[in-house]
Amino acid sequence: MQVLEDLNNSLRDNLLLVGYLILSQRYFVMFHKILLVNIKESDIDQSYWKRIDSITQKKVFLPKDSPNIVKEIKDADCLLVGFATHVTKEHIDAAPHLKYIGTSAVAFHNIDVEYARKRAIPVTNIAGYCTDAVAEFIIASILNEIRHLDEGKERARNNNYEFRGINPSQIKGKIFAVFGLGNIGKRTAEIAKGFGADVRYWSKHRKKDFEENGIKYEDKDSLLRNSDFISLNFAHTPETEKFLGKKEFSEIKSGAVVVNTVPMETIDLDALENRLNKNDIIFISDHSDEMKKEDLTKIKKYKNCITYPPIAFNTKEAIINKNNLFVGNIENFLKGHPTNVVN
Amino acid sequence: MQVLEDLNNSLRDNLLLVGYLILSQRYFVMFHKILLVNIKESDIDQSYWKRIDSITQKKVFLPKDSPNIVKEIKDADCLLVGFATHVTKEHIDAAPHLKYIGTSAVAFHNIDVEYARKRAIPVTNIAGYCTDAVAEFIIASILNEIRHLDEGKERARNNNYEFRGINPSQIKGKIFAVFGLGNIGKRTAEIAKGFGADVRYWSKHRKKDFEENGIKYEDKDSLLRNSDFISLNFAHTPETEKFLGKKEFSEIKSGAVVVNTVPMETIDLDALENRLNKNDIIFISDHSDEMKKEDLTKIKKYKNCITYPPIAFNTKEAIINKNNLFVGNIENFLKGHPTNVVN
Repeated sequence: MQVLEDLNNSLRDNLLLVGYLILSQRYFVMFHKILLVNIKESDIDQSYWKRIDSITQKKVFLPKDSPNIVKEIKDADCLLVGFATHVTKEHIDAAPHLKYIGTSAVAFHNIDVEYARKRAIPVTNIAGYCTDAVAEFIIASILNEIRHLDEGKERARNNNYEFRGINPSQIKGKIFAVFGLGNIGKRTAEIAKGFGADVRYWSKHRKKDFEENGIKYEDKDSLLRNSDFISLNFAHTPETEKFLGKKEFSEIKSGAVVVNTVPMETIDLDALENRLNKNDIIFISDHSDEMKKEDLTKIKKYKNCITYPPIAFNTKEAIINKNNLFVGNIENFLKGHPTNVVN
Repeated sequence: MQVLEDLNNSLRDNLLLVGYLILSQRYFVMFHKILLVNIKESDIDQSYWKRIDSITQKKVFLPKDSPNIVKEIKDADCLLVGFATHVTKEHIDAAPHLKYIGTSAVAFHNIDVEYARKRAIPVTNIAGYCTDAVAEFIIASILNEIRHLDEGKERARNNNYEFRGINPSQIKGKIFAVFGLGNIGKRTAEIAKGFGADVRYWSKHRKKDFEENGIKYEDKDSLLRNSDFISLNFAHTPETEKFLGKKEFSEIKSGAVVVNTVPMETIDLDALENRLNKNDIIFISDHSDEMKKEDLTKIKKYKNCITYPPIAFNTKEAIINKNNLFVGNIENFLKGHPTNVVN
């Protein structure tokens, strides 16, 4: 039986060796310990956890802003954080072995990415995961209003099939303005172009390449005055704070539909309320969850102010993209070609 | 004062002559009498009536199927009819001076267009007036369901800004099938292409020119099995009666959204009900107004059966197109180059 046992041990060792060779070919290194802050096991599908488990020896979960971060980060070589999680100089200083920081969000304003760079630690995000999701929501939410689908469904529910009195309108031939021409702005512009809209854009930096698609640049003021549809698609920065203020809201064309899928800090709420009160524009936002209750109450009382939960970014397809990017970024770093590095 | 009166008369005569010359240059002839059946004065804007008045000496209005048609048509040289109005051999025989028949609808199945052709009377319709209106509604009604906009708005109304539990999906990358590739089918395909869908079509006659846009032909059965979105865009004819029957409804992919903006005679209602009962497809129709009440009740009880009043064709822009085409057809006939002739 000793012979069989030796053969068994030898087979096991060889299998382990083969396994190691396969692994080491796929990944130059494995992590010793991954610290996960503000990410719960239930946030990600099991298949993704399997991919994470296959590249680390140990996982430790902590809630957001836990005082234990400084202790647990000591021997961690990988730090993964959820949306809006703080990663400070103190955290990084406490982590002599840290090689990688990944966030499962697009925003990284709470991570000291500059200090991480000084320590040669790449910080990765999941930029672009919801480009199509948001762009399609912008178009969907506009169509919902201009086709009066709610009124249509309501009538049908009440067995009223009269179409008169519902006065829908179209996107074709209208001026469709995109403010901010990043990924989401571009995708929105392309879809609107498919409808046959006259698509125009304003952006801090003019993007002449994109203009070859027949999408014209126009300055902010004349775009506000001319456009039937207005979509805001830039990040919230000090520069874009109250981008639509008193002057801008007075310029917007009567009958226009304004869609805001970016944080409401880009909007001067008093100016918005003032214009909503004239009842000649429609304003749509899906960022109401981030607003102060009293601010929200102030604008929601207007029928022409349409609010949604934050459902623009949140399609099934975007969630798959999100997980693939988040886990893919970690794998790509280990393979030696890091992706979506922001610092 | 006689001098002034003569001058006045002479001026008036000259003005009339100038007016006549302008008119006769624009129109070879004017109509003596236009008979309008099933068209009310309130159906069309005043500006269009002015255009009609400028090319006729007399207008007579009659309701649909009025017994007076035979009498009034005797000295009419132009017959204008509303939606689904009967124009029979008897009517045409009773009208020795009739030169032109125009309908303010797309359908002309109640007009004896063959007999009119034998009498060399052109019949014109307003084909294409609502192409964009219907195509945009198809996309709007799909987006409304797959983005769960009703649920989103309902939550927001109740100050619930939780996005979890709403599981929206996208058009991008999905298989989008257009059955019937006329004007509306083509426009729908183009818009879906703008979303980045994998657009495919089935049509009685293959249209290879259109395939250059990256829109692939596929046979009916495999298209039903493969597609995430299905839009019916052919006319209702004996051939398309119950186009979606028992076999077809059993083939449709689980999770698919089917949009029907054509008459419900194209659908086998028992087969539809059977599939709705499985609760794995969404069916949308805006032709419920034409259905028998008991049929409508049968399918409407399913939550995945979405009905609308006939609002697909009915945008502000389509109504403008409609009036322009209807009156334009009359003017073009008088100018010697008739448009939208169907016989």
